[in-house]
Amino acid sequence: MTIPTEYKDLLDKKSFGHVATIGPKGEPQSSPVWIDFDGQYVKFSNLKSRQKFKNLERDPRVSISLIDPDDPYRYIEIRGIAEKIEDDEGNAFINEMAKKYIDRDIYPWHKEGDERVVIFVKPLANSSMG
Amino acid sequence: MTIPTEYKDLLDKKSFGHVATIGPKGEPQSSPVWIDFDGQYVKFSNLKSRQKFKNLERDPRVSISLIDPDDPYRYIEIRGIAEKIEDDEGNAFINEMAKKYIDRDIYPWHKEGDERVVIFVKPLANSSMG
Repeated sequence: MTIPTEYKDLLDKKSFGHVATIGPKGEPQSSPVWIDFDGQYVKFSNLKSRQKFKNLERDPRVSISLIDPDDPYRYIEIRGIAEKIEDDEGNAFINEMAKKYIDRDIYPWHKEGDERVVIFVKPLANSSMG
Repeated sequence: MTIPTEYKDLLDKKSFGHVATIGPKGEPQSSPVWIDFDGQYVKFSNLKSRQKFKNLERDPRVSISLIDPDDPYRYIEIRGIAEKIEDDEGNAFINEMAKKYIDRDIYPWHKEGDERVVIFVKPLANSSMG
């Protein structure tokens, strides 16, 4: 499974992915992130200190809900698994996302000691509207 | 717990709530909905035929992720439980939401046979940014 062709543009736009994961007690957790699609994986950045990272290490199942910023009645939900989690060497990925979303070469909110990773989500199913 | 005062405006705006629930195999599910806050409950509409409704009947835990439409770097995640689910008599609630979001007196996408409910989410915790 990959992303349906007619919804791929949503992943190129500055749309936020609302990423839902499973917390330690089996409860849902959700927050918005910048997202990228490399043709195979839906990718987003995270910190090792974050609940979402800890959730995904325990349970890799994820759902990403995305609205078209140009038409809120067009959306896609992508369900999949975080198949790989890699260190974001030199902040290369978060800097790329900063360029895409806020047109900055360097991610401006980096803090000393932040350990950043890239989450690679393999899409397995989706539902969409609009 | 209720919604922090400084974030209540997000619930009055035309912001979409990305509602995450737990599916039948314990997996996350997420999709955007219109939302309302009555001072006690965060409310949204759903259909009895929908996966989200079935999920909430099985497991009432929910997370709602909301971005400020005027500043995407300001958001709140509201975690809680669907404490009540009531029939939407005469489509009163969905019509109210249509007024708020698309300025229509009557929800235009109603279909014959749709059984609509109102989900009442009691907020229990939150995290926010911005």
